[in-house]
Amino acid sequence: MEADLLVVGAGIFGLSTAYHYLRENPGKSVLIVDRMGDVGQGATAKSAAAFRADLFTSATNRLLAGTSVDFFLHVQEEGYDLGIMKVGYLVLRSRDQFERIAEVAVMLERAGAVRIYRREELKEKLQINYEFPGDEEAELLNIKEVDYGIFGYKCGYMDADKLAYYYRDRIREMGGDFQFNTKVERILVEPEIKLGIPREPRAWQKVKFSGLETNRGIMRAKNLVIAAGGWTHLLLDPIGIDCLSKPKKRQIFTVRPRTEEQRALLNTTGFNEEGVLPFTILPTEHYIRADKRDGTIWLALSDEMRPFSTDDEPEESFYYDNIYPIIVKYFPQLEGARIDNMWAGLYMINSVDHNPVVFRRSNMVVATGDSGSGIMKGDAIGRIAAALIQGRREAELFGGERIPADRLEVVGRSLEPESFVF
Amino acid sequence: MEADLLVVGAGIFGLSTAYHYLRENPGKSVLIVDRMGDVGQGATAKSAAAFRADLFTSATNRLLAGTSVDFFLHVQEEGYDLGIMKVGYLVLRSRDQFERIAEVAVMLERAGAVRIYRREELKEKLQINYEFPGDEEAELLNIKEVDYGIFGYKCGYMDADKLAYYYRDRIREMGGDFQFNTKVERILVEPEIKLGIPREPRAWQKVKFSGLETNRGIMRAKNLVIAAGGWTHLLLDPIGIDCLSKPKKRQIFTVRPRTEEQRALLNTTGFNEEGVLPFTILPTEHYIRADKRDGTIWLALSDEMRPFSTDDEPEESFYYDNIYPIIVKYFPQLEGARIDNMWAGLYMINSVDHNPVVFRRSNMVVATGDSGSGIMKGDAIGRIAAALIQGRREAELFGGERIPADRLEVVGRSLEPESFVF
Repeated sequence: MEADLLVVGAGIFGLSTAYHYLRENPGKSVLIVDRMGDVGQGATAKSAAAFRADLFTSATNRLLAGTSVDFFLHVQEEGYDLGIMKVGYLVLRSRDQFERIAEVAVMLERAGAVRIYRREELKEKLQINYEFPGDEEAELLNIKEVDYGIFGYKCGYMDADKLAYYYRDRIREMGGDFQFNTKVERILVEPEIKLGIPREPRAWQKVKFSGLETNRGIMRAKNLVIAAGGWTHLLLDPIGIDCLSKPKKRQIFTVRPRTEEQRALLNTTGFNEEGVLPFTILPTEHYIRADKRDGTIWLALSDEMRPFSTDDEPEESFYYDNIYPIIVKYFPQLEGARIDNMWAGLYMINSVDHNPVVFRRSNMVVATGDSGSGIMKGDAIGRIAAALIQGRREAELFGGERIPADRLEVVGRSLEPESFVF
Repeated sequence: MEADLLVVGAGIFGLSTAYHYLRENPGKSVLIVDRMGDVGQGATAKSAAAFRADLFTSATNRLLAGTSVDFFLHVQEEGYDLGIMKVGYLVLRSRDQFERIAEVAVMLERAGAVRIYRREELKEKLQINYEFPGDEEAELLNIKEVDYGIFGYKCGYMDADKLAYYYRDRIREMGGDFQFNTKVERILVEPEIKLGIPREPRAWQKVKFSGLETNRGIMRAKNLVIAAGGWTHLLLDPIGIDCLSKPKKRQIFTVRPRTEEQRALLNTTGFNEEGVLPFTILPTEHYIRADKRDGTIWLALSDEMRPFSTDDEPEESFYYDNIYPIIVKYFPQLEGARIDNMWAGLYMINSVDHNPVVFRRSNMVVATGDSGSGIMKGDAIGRIAAALIQGRREAELFGGERIPADRLEVVGRSLEPESFVF
């Protein structure tokens, strides 16, 4: 039995690709395999599920995220709850940091996508420490002052599970199938014309990717999609295909407010209709998400020197060493906040430009390399991958804008580098 | 004891970097470590040591190779034998293949760098098969006809050992030192300001790369250069730095002419003064180097689906499966040619643009990712890496032309993709 499309990975990229392929090809057989027990249980579930539609320096990223966020808002308006909280992003920057991105920030402000706050304006809305005169510990911790805040409007966070379930249910409605608890061991490479000689395929044979070897046996398909997040390179390296992306562990720690001042953080007014703290990025690149709905505060840091590896165990020491001491400098009201919950996921990134990586080789399409802002571009990535499977030169994004299907290709890549990497 | 510069890797990139650094900084202490017993024993020794000055579609590659080849020719003119055989490159292409690169080929011909031959002209000089009418086996083997030949003048091959020894001896003359048989286990990452707390460096500390842990103990230096060829990523992945390059095994097989016709191949006239076969690339991407000096014919193929891995064992079956059957279709005079010698090395490539990768992070410079055309760009790479170590914005290449020192940087990379990948 051979499926029309076999997708490795039931994260947002794999789901969105299957969804758009089925939408454009009703009746085709689609099978999605994943090593977990349901959709969106890998990096999708471990992410902050934040979204920002315009806060990118790369025009390609703005297009991918903008149209995807529009699609998600449209889905929610249609009555499917994706848990979207359009609370805005608040990127706090020191003077030096701001100057490096001022040009884009001002351009985005003119376009109505962001508002730039100065320190004095921020102080009226947000009770944090903005400067640290005479604080030797702050200096040691390389704490930077807050001079500016860039507030992005079409930004916030959503419920990644709900988005994954939305896709899963639509895919099932269209006849798509899932096989969970399935670990893919390798991609089957076979000659287009089988000769029955030893050591096929030989180097001179044209090959196709005919399926997968899994812990549940061989699966065959006319087309393959590899959207295996931080494990993608482990499938592609053995067949000599470079996906330009490597994974790093990223950890999130949650704390529960225990004092009045801590609870007040969940009810920060003046930025959004919801009256909550926007998704906030500190000058140290720590971020904080204070979700009023479940009363938790999420804290995290993307540490640069983290090894490339598939280790995804959270470490309590990371919170006490690298997050807590810095966070309480800015948010003294979080003094004493202890870990309530923690998890880690694989952050799969391309270091060249921080745009996603989507490309086709023979009958296989790969979609990966955009952790940190992958979910929020998920709809566009699925459309591009679905276009590539069908051999189309362009993909139509939500809202009608078109993009060359090879825009995110590895070979000959030349994309605007992304400077807003949070 | 702390060296001014510690270089990992005594291949051409490491050697050239140390050479130019010492030339520009007489009296500085430079130590080069390598796991082998002498210079140039890794991929340098395993390569075909071919060079082509102009045969690139990337203008950056043309500049890097052109000035480096000029430097090598200059060195040889000064009386140091580098074993240079300026026999030319002959790139044989089918009509389809030629059409894809015709624009660059014609531009290069106008500039006097190449001559484009048509099949009929080639037939007068080179006794091979150009077409395969009715040959079903040739069709099965995906043999392509030869319709064009692009002959590059400032091209040929050299003796990689001699080039490595040249650099080694000059480095020693300038006071540089080598420590061989030294395996680097990891790069030492330390905080710029040591606090004496557990788990340093913390994520908020500024770091420097203070040296190396090796099988012979710790070595410290003010500046580090990582030029470890196909092992570079194994040193950089654990500290979370992406060198954009992955290694594949590349194998070379030599055969000895045993018949008159085979010997005649070594004496192909009409292309060069030496009266030997140019370094020839077939439409199947197999290449052939027939060196009159030692009477050997080198045969190889860069197989695309080769896994990324650090395995570097040659396989006899690769010759009989993938090289011999194709080579004898074009060169029937090689019928019966058996392996005389074989070896394999790691081919470290960046899949994005096939230009070299050279960048600086803190006090460390990385130079890698250009196998296939690395040796022939070695002088320019050393100058760029030496400029980066010294914090300069530009490097001066041989002949005086200047290049931004960050041209080959990973982050924000946007280089002309190379289409002449042989």
